Amino acid sequence: MNDYGRFFSTNAGTMRESAIRQMGAVLAQVPDIVSFAPGYPAEDEFPWRACADVAAELLKGADGSVLQYGPTRGYKPLREVIAGLMAQRTVAASVDRLLVTSGSQQGLDLLARVLLDPGDVALVELPSYTGAITAFRNVGASLVGVRQDDDGIDFDHLAHVWTTLRHEGRRVKFIYVVPNFQNPSGSLLPLERRRRLLEWARAHDVLVIEDDPYRDLYFSNVPGPESTRPIAADDDEGRVIYLSSFSKTLAPGFRVAWISGPEPVLAKIELAKQAADLCTGGLDQRIVHEACRRGVLDAQLPRLRAHYERKCDVMSAALGRRLADSVRWVRPRGGFFLWLELREPLRSETLLSVARAHGVIFVMGSAFFVNGEGHRHLRLSFSAPAPDRIELGIERLGAAVTAASSEAVQGVESIS
Amino acid sequence: MNDYGRFFSTNAGTMRESAIRQMGAVLAQVPDIVSFAPGYPAEDEFPWRACADVAAELLKGADGSVLQYGPTRGYKPLREVIAGLMAQRTVAASVDRLLVTSGSQQGLDLLARVLLDPGDVALVELPSYTGAITAFRNVGASLVGVRQDDDGIDFDHLAHVWTTLRHEGRRVKFIYVVPNFQNPSGSLLPLERRRRLLEWARAHDVLVIEDDPYRDLYFSNVPGPESTRPIAADDDEGRVIYLSSFSKTLAPGFRVAWISGPEPVLAKIELAKQAADLCTGGLDQRIVHEACRRGVLDAQLPRLRAHYERKCDVMSAALGRRLADSVRWVRPRGGFFLWLELREPLRSETLLSVARAHGVIFVMGSAFFVNGEGHRHLRLSFSAPAPDRIELGIERLGAAVTAASSEAVQGVESIS
Repeated sequence: MNDYGRFFSTNAGTMRESAIRQMGAVLAQVPDIVSFAPGYPAEDEFPWRACADVAAELLKGADGSVLQYGPTRGYKPLREVIAGLMAQRTVAASVDRLLVTSGSQQGLDLLARVLLDPGDVALVELPSYTGAITAFRNVGASLVGVRQDDDGIDFDHLAHVWTTLRHEGRRVKFIYVVPNFQNPSGSLLPLERRRRLLEWARAHDVLVIEDDPYRDLYFSNVPGPESTRPIAADDDEGRVIYLSSFSKTLAPGFRVAWISGPEPVLAKIELAKQAADLCTGGLDQRIVHEACRRGVLDAQLPRLRAHYERKCDVMSAALGRRLADSVRWVRPRGGFFLWLELREPLRSETLLSVARAHGVIFVMGSAFFVNGEGHRHLRLSFSAPAPDRIELGIERLGAAVTAASSEAVQGVESIS
Repeated sequence: MNDYGRFFSTNAGTMRESAIRQMGAVLAQVPDIVSFAPGYPAEDEFPWRACADVAAELLKGADGSVLQYGPTRGYKPLREVIAGLMAQRTVAASVDRLLVTSGSQQGLDLLARVLLDPGDVALVELPSYTGAITAFRNVGASLVGVRQDDDGIDFDHLAHVWTTLRHEGRRVKFIYVVPNFQNPSGSLLPLERRRRLLEWARAHDVLVIEDDPYRDLYFSNVPGPESTRPIAADDDEGRVIYLSSFSKTLAPGFRVAWISGPEPVLAKIELAKQAADLCTGGLDQRIVHEACRRGVLDAQLPRLRAHYERKCDVMSAALGRRLADSVRWVRPRGGFFLWLELREPLRSETLLSVARAHGVIFVMGSAFFVNGEGHRHLRLSFSAPAPDRIELGIERLGAAVTAASSEAVQGVESIS
């Protein structure tokens, strides 16, 4: 048999490959390439020794449940630790309002499954995180984009989108946002807009899905803790479902993240997770729990903030030297990404193929837009490569822009 | 807000709690209870020391990718090791025909998502594994049961079911089977029936999903390796999708399993997994890989076979002493389960509530039947409890059967 089309579900027919994962395949083929594509955290910064110590103790076998199946909601002591982290973030989330997921990607996928029917509308930012886009699309939902300016969501456009959808009789279930150091744009949604968004959601009876993986990785140009205050902190009626993760602060190899929300939604998520993977890995959850309990996470955060800010500075400076005339960007105040806008007439698709030949890759902007736009944008992750590799990569990108621009100009000239 | 019904998807509305997980909650409440409910492997038998040694080496940090995001298909050296395991099982599965899943439960869930549309029919055995039933139901599929006798699938009933479905114009996508030491019945499908099933699937253009977690845990009454030969071993056209796992042979806390099948199906599964959890845990995959490479798995298997056979013997003997007049069972030739049939007029639901009060729990048969039957059956897992706890639990079960029978007889008398 070669053709399995007759066996596939409708949803399987529309599943598409992640542009970021695709870049991972490119990377695997070319060893010397500088990759600004995936948002991988820096491996050198993982708390190796602490994890080794914790794992050694856990694997003595004194507590057999470390390697056993565990509860679907997650290891309870870990949920208690997470409740403490949530309190630090000024969100009241008791243990029974928390569920451990196998990475935040699973949280998004489970939410898609319990909230979205085919044809339902999920509102997302323009641009938005590809992993969320994929999870929502995989259940047959319609994704409708809301424009952002440099500070995040544009409420005039949101009103316009709402009116149009209303007119078409469409059902909007939720709006998905990444308020802190958004992936890919790096933007930080001002507190006033967070509150306005929550009010908007209330007025229009829409849920808010707040995805917050980068919250602890702010830079020194963040005014104060109020700037990263979760929308969930002001939610007193159970309208916000909040996700966060240890992938960027401890390590993604553990696949440990969490979701917090109203009990009826968590109860459904739990049922969906029972069928999805029974439970998140036991050893992973214990290691993360011990790392939090012993202060490893707390010790990590200031180091990571300095680490990623430095890399962001290196990349910004290199871009300023090499590409100030060809691209525009806003310096982020945290997170992993620089979001570049190319000057006309260059397109990121063209640039990517030239850049690849020059030994550097990134994710093209169109991967983050649900409305077919983004061809002038690209996302650069500064999180994983060492500073000298960042400089080398930007050097190569500069050469690629020069080469691609002259090609593009020639293309325009030959058309005219 | 209290009512979230307006936000839930159609599928969320029909999701149900796993009867086995529910028992887990009961267990958590009553510490001294003897649990024959979940099919947990024996924690004392996990290869603790070997895992500790491996983890210590992996967490030295020499290879940063151990705790990084990894490829969605899985860690390649692990897939190479799995290809070797598949060859031992006489199934030719090259690395590009294998995908690592976060437990076999994820494999079932991903298959459901890429193969089943709402209303599509999945054929399952009567009884069948609850985790598969849940995964298939969660996407809105119709589950239709095929009867088993003591040796597995009844082909006369299969023919009857097919004719009925055909008549109703229903679309059957696959038949799901657990040929080796089936969960819950413990039955071992004879080789002749395996081949007949494959031929049947071919003739009716239906896929076969072969779930094989217990294959290596056979007892001394298994005639020879041919008795556990996978259906996939005789599949020369890509009709069988095969799942297996390290959960029962190393430890379930690692959440590492695999799926093997035709490339077009695996490609879709990979897309679904990208959105479901990006990748399986890095540390977990490395530990499992090293455990296989260093011969830890090979050393485990004879010990585990002896361990579980002994427990099966202890439970069978205790049942023979205490309950021979009240229940019927067939001694399994491997796996984790004894499948009991109660004598009239007792029902397993009644027995369960009485048994709970007597300090012993199990899973009632109806959890495994998609057609509403199973009220005279119960599944006892002998895998986790120590032998003296098994004897204690059967003693309690005996007392519960006595108590419940007199209640049941009284009930019948009071009706008549």
